[in-house]
Amino acid sequence: MTQEAQEPVSLLVEGDWVLTQNDDRQIFSPGAVAIRGAEIAAVGPPAELKRRYEPARTLSYPQGLILPGLINAHTHAAMSLFRGLADDLPLEEWLNNYIFPAERCLTGEYVYWGTKLSVAEMLLSGATTFCDMYLFADAVAQAAAETGIRAVVGEVLYDFPSPNYGLPEAGLRFSENLCQTWQGHPLVQVAIQPHAVYTCSPDLLQKCQALADKYNTRLIIHLSETSTEVADCQTRYGATPVAHLHRLGLLTSRLVADHAVVLTEADMELLAASGAGVAHCPESNMKLASGVAPVAELLRRGVPVGLGTDGCASNNNLDLFQEMDTAAKLQKVRHLDPTLLPATAALDLATRGGARVLGLEREIGALAPGRCADLVVVDLDQPHLTPLYDPYSQLVYAASGADVQTVVVHGQVLVQDRVLLSFDLEETLARARDLASGIRARIPHAKPRCYAARNQPG
Amino acid sequence: MTQEAQEPVSLLVEGDWVLTQNDDRQIFSPGAVAIRGAEIAAVGPPAELKRRYEPARTLSYPQGLILPGLINAHTHAAMSLFRGLADDLPLEEWLNNYIFPAERCLTGEYVYWGTKLSVAEMLLSGATTFCDMYLFADAVAQAAAETGIRAVVGEVLYDFPSPNYGLPEAGLRFSENLCQTWQGHPLVQVAIQPHAVYTCSPDLLQKCQALADKYNTRLIIHLSETSTEVADCQTRYGATPVAHLHRLGLLTSRLVADHAVVLTEADMELLAASGAGVAHCPESNMKLASGVAPVAELLRRGVPVGLGTDGCASNNNLDLFQEMDTAAKLQKVRHLDPTLLPATAALDLATRGGARVLGLEREIGALAPGRCADLVVVDLDQPHLTPLYDPYSQLVYAASGADVQTVVVHGQVLVQDRVLLSFDLEETLARARDLASGIRARIPHAKPRCYAARNQPG
Repeated sequence: MTQEAQEPVSLLVEGDWVLTQNDDRQIFSPGAVAIRGAEIAAVGPPAELKRRYEPARTLSYPQGLILPGLINAHTHAAMSLFRGLADDLPLEEWLNNYIFPAERCLTGEYVYWGTKLSVAEMLLSGATTFCDMYLFADAVAQAAAETGIRAVVGEVLYDFPSPNYGLPEAGLRFSENLCQTWQGHPLVQVAIQPHAVYTCSPDLLQKCQALADKYNTRLIIHLSETSTEVADCQTRYGATPVAHLHRLGLLTSRLVADHAVVLTEADMELLAASGAGVAHCPESNMKLASGVAPVAELLRRGVPVGLGTDGCASNNNLDLFQEMDTAAKLQKVRHLDPTLLPATAALDLATRGGARVLGLEREIGALAPGRCADLVVVDLDQPHLTPLYDPYSQLVYAASGADVQTVVVHGQVLVQDRVLLSFDLEETLARARDLASGIRARIPHAKPRCYAARNQPG
Repeated sequence: MTQEAQEPVSLLVEGDWVLTQNDDRQIFSPGAVAIRGAEIAAVGPPAELKRRYEPARTLSYPQGLILPGLINAHTHAAMSLFRGLADDLPLEEWLNNYIFPAERCLTGEYVYWGTKLSVAEMLLSGATTFCDMYLFADAVAQAAAETGIRAVVGEVLYDFPSPNYGLPEAGLRFSENLCQTWQGHPLVQVAIQPHAVYTCSPDLLQKCQALADKYNTRLIIHLSETSTEVADCQTRYGATPVAHLHRLGLLTSRLVADHAVVLTEADMELLAASGAGVAHCPESNMKLASGVAPVAELLRRGVPVGLGTDGCASNNNLDLFQEMDTAAKLQKVRHLDPTLLPATAALDLATRGGARVLGLEREIGALAPGRCADLVVVDLDQPHLTPLYDPYSQLVYAASGADVQTVVVHGQVLVQDRVLLSFDLEETLARARDLASGIRARIPHAKPRCYAARNQPG
């Protein structure tokens, strides 16, 4: 047998398991992923890959499980600065007395550091792509590009003035400028993101759609999140939010509907027929008491569904492993059927599903030759992940983000053995704490009960 | 000012915060706990405690939050050996084709190592007490005593033969013997644990009650877990499970009702009037699609409620931080009210509430002088726990068991800086993996799909 010439690759990652999440849901155990630059060259048994490739660097995890990097399909990253500022409150009190006043003092600096804080959390817990909607989206894009995470960003647009761009027309210009600035960037994409049907006039929505058409990008909107939103839309426009978008010509295969909790049968049919995707945010929907999105039903109808954490003010973390667990269990208990949304389907939401929703199904969401080299290694050598009968069950029902050991995005090792390599974590935590002091000071009526109690004698 | 003489204590633990969970929910920031042997001597500001006490040893956590050790009010610890063996199945298929066949091959050795596996997971994730119901409860007690965790154990009793003790009468003798063996043990208590109303005759239930009376201990039973159980009980006895126990004289302040999902108004009134406690297991109830227990309503009526993970075959981990998060969010979404079960109430379930349910409210559940020295230190210096506005929100909605840094039970440091000190973790994981191979071999029809796929070329 002649020795074939080995092809050089930049990185080989091997582990006890590889869950590819490719179209055949192939598994290798043991398994390895060969990476050439930013792309996956091959996935297969380690022995075979070592025969074919000569890696410049090898990372071996004899007790590791390798899976595609997870995709956070909807968040407001910088809201990590408001984590725990106000919880367990009625929605209007939460928004009007805490979140809106806190957001009025935002600047690009807040958003930049808040986003970096969230990127640290996301990378350390296995998310390699996030889709963000927020103010100062240029700062979000900058933070993403600097930290090496993959991101879809967009400036939030609405009818009233924004602390960033001012009047709505300026918001459209800001968004267009953002599209042009980041065109062709390997990690950052820009989407057009009107806030919701109750904060955006039909005119603004249609201008957003025109912009998304012009730049061939996603149009992303909070849609049918609460029954109040649906009732108001019915009163104002005589249609559900989904039907309202349909009439306005916004219901296309490039639409991403965030939340999609309160849907009629007709809404689901419209969504399915349009090819639009849904970003499901179960923990936020539970915490804000919005309801349970009909995910099993949407999947049955072929609607692409991804998984999002929403912002840290309504979750309060960005752990997609816990989100998968909650998503699966919530469908089961909602419909009193333990077979709904099995572990494999929950993992699909956070990988293949999210990729489809964001229009990145050829780039990410599975480990396959030609895709972006975005992967995560989970450390299986722990009591709560022992024994292992089924890796899907283990990931969805037993693991958490803290089990993530190593993370590769676009071929770069950003986290290794639980240490963040791509930027300064200590500086980020210190800046976040400083900015939080400023936020606390601006909401005097908040008087967080615990700070008031500091240093009391006992 | 004269220098007072300092009193020697064995251990002082200090941190950025102490949440006492005492009757006034006192907080110290910074705070410290002074420990004399197995008991708490004092809780207060570090400067004050350092003036009063001379500790033999000091553990300082400048970015740590100290809280009472968490209480797992209902589990089947050794079922960690079945973690992920069978998920997402209809209840009967899960029980009859997987769990029951797996349990038929159990021996004391399986239960001993399965319990140690779970104790490792529980200690590392901040649980310092667990209430267990399982076969071979002598092995559970032995594992608990050896590992230094606090436990309430009990042999599961039912009308059919047990792989442990054989016939039901022998089960009662086994339980009585267990009570005698462990009487006065500082860590292990024994309770009487009939399985459920559908597996125990009225005669067996009343004999259990007599035994619980004789040894003045808890009577613990799965109660009203599913609508099938309630319907069957109505058919057989013409009463709900709660009313059935009431008629039989079992509804007392020493009863612990595990699950209590499907309750009528009358059931809740009976529970409240009796002083019985409830062990709420939200994640298991979700995963098995049993329903949502009316926890907010039970608390409103003054019923003591603790928090349990249930066994790892139906959860699939023992993380009480995630369980608190799920408990709070599930009540909110179930009743579409974001103010229900706030973070403070969720932490109460896993501390004060669990202690009351188990009749240990004078020993554990709060950090106060004279109580057992059971505490947990959470490492706040992490991106997902930054910034900190409210420590209760942070613990319940943002933290997970992986954030636990140090654990003290009965004055002994069992986990320090995330390392398990009280027994050999590697040996336990190795034994658990070996035993799991045996279990897998005995369920040939299981053929876990992933093991079948091992080593396939790609």
